[in-house]
Amino acid sequence: MYTYKTVIKLHDTDAAGILFFSHQFEIIHDAYESFLEKVGVGFPVLIRKKNYFLPIVHAEADYKSPLFVGDRITVEVHLAHVGTTSFTFTYRLLNSKGKLVGTARTVHVTTDKKTKKKIPLPADMRQAIKKMRNI
Amino acid sequence: MYTYKTVIKLHDTDAAGILFFSHQFEIIHDAYESFLEKVGVGFPVLIRKKNYFLPIVHAEADYKSPLFVGDRITVEVHLAHVGTTSFTFTYRLLNSKGKLVGTARTVHVTTDKKTKKKIPLPADMRQAIKKMRNI
Amino acid sequence: MYTYKTVIKLHDTDAAGILFFSHQFEIIHDAYESFLEKVGVGFPVLIRKKNYFLPIVHAEADYKSPLFVGDRITVEVHLAHVGTTSFTFTYRLLNSKGKLVGTARTVHVTTDKKTKKKIPLPADMRQAIKKMRNI
Amino acid sequence: MYTYKTVIKLHDTDAAGILFFSHQFEIIHDAYESFLEKVGVGFPVLIRKKNYFLPIVHAEADYKSPLFVGDRITVEVHLAHVGTTSFTFTYRLLNSKGKLVGTARTVHVTTDKKTKKKIPLPADMRQAIKKMRNI
Repeated sequence: MYTYKTVIKLHDTDAAGILFFSHQFEIIHDAYESFLEKVGVGFPVLIRKKNYFLPIVHAEADYKSPLFVGDRITVEVHLAHVGTTSFTFTYRLLNSKGKLVGTARTVHVTTDKKTKKKIPLPADMRQAIKKMRNI
Repeated sequence: MYTYKTVIKLHDTDAAGILFFSHQFEIIHDAYESFLEKVGVGFPVLIRKKNYFLPIVHAEADYKSPLFVGDRITVEVHLAHVGTTSFTFTYRLLNSKGKLVGTARTVHVTTDKKTKKKIPLPADMRQAIKKMRNI
Repeated sequence: MYTYKTVIKLHDTDAAGILFFSHQFEIIHDAYESFLEKVGVGFPVLIRKKNYFLPIVHAEADYKSPLFVGDRITVEVHLAHVGTTSFTFTYRLLNSKGKLVGTARTVHVTTDKKTKKKIPLPADMRQAIKKMRNI
Repeated sequence: MYTYKTVIKLHDTDAAGILFFSHQFEIIHDAYESFLEKVGVGFPVLIRKKNYFLPIVHAEADYKSPLFVGDRITVEVHLAHVGTTSFTFTYRLLNSKGKLVGTARTVHVTTDKKTKKKIPLPADMRQAIKKMRNI
């Protein structure tokens, strides 16, 4: 499990006074970016140096409690599944009291940057995300 | 079915060159806002005049083809379910050739603005969203 | 002058109930993208086919009246200046009653995509933006 | 001077590969929110407990070097001016090598939440932002 901490910003909220739902997806992706950076395959490396990419093909989230500007959030990132050409991360969002306020899941596939076709998950990426288990 | 048309903007994309996944949720919500406006319960009315609100408690999306800046998109909005205290919309995103490029689903509950507790779907809202069938 | 019409979306607003200031910059850029598309040098062309790019080096905006979700906005785009290696657009935002609610200005320079150095404004781009005068 | 540290996220970038210009305004506002929180008048307090608000009436930014996903940024926040009904913050963005990559400026006015009219800067807010000098 990898943990990431952040704060709800004013621009994450909307005129209903709470987190706009799509911004929870930005927050969990921020956590995922931070994890990839930590295990050596951050987006600067992915975008500039790799011949594969990891597009999200499915995303989902549940919203259990409204979040307000200034709320301090911990995101727990879990590696839920590693397949031949895909992997799945799940996320739990906790408020400052440790209460579960949201969950999410993203499914990623590996594609060749040039052909845009699905390819087997490269060994370096497979090794990197499996480091999750030792964090 | 309600249809909504838009264009992928530069700020919808990211450094991987395609639509950032969370922005598909913004686009379907834009379509939903446009539908609510059309049937008389748009967000200006919801925020200023109603004692209930309609928070999203679940959202999910599939991404079938990458979308690029300038792509013209049609969003088809469908009312999938109306329950006692909730309703569900589904969305299909088509590119300019009519190809299905993404889908999404949002589940909304009705809550009292003051108590934040779940309440039965108010009659005006129930009637409004059911107009979907005649559009 | 080129005119562009849009609506303030829920995700453009924040918990203070009004347009979050940075989103006015997104809206004027949407208008600019729409103009470039109209004159034949839209972002799909710029990103895929040109060896130059047009980064913004200065941006500014004034906010004269708060904007709310659902507000219908007209953006007037003006070509204010064309120099050797740069050009400037100004923008006026009007609400549905024709009242001026905001203004903005963006200064763009032409850079070589590979070297990232400033280059003279290419002839095709110069011609394209000057079509503004005949719109 | 107050300093705030952050990282450029994938959703801050666009298909041109660099920070989308409006997101620099989000980043400096994040820094401003962090400062207000530090001096006791954070947005949770402003939105829930105060009878005034601090809308931005002018914003501007310069972009000196392109920023990429993963770039670590320090934002220096300076209190540039405190007037009778307004105040001005300036911002300097530095990359991880200490190079100045951007600047910004925001002008805020104090308005009454109910009447939306300009009011003198309240004493608590005046005192809070002046704490800048001792940070």
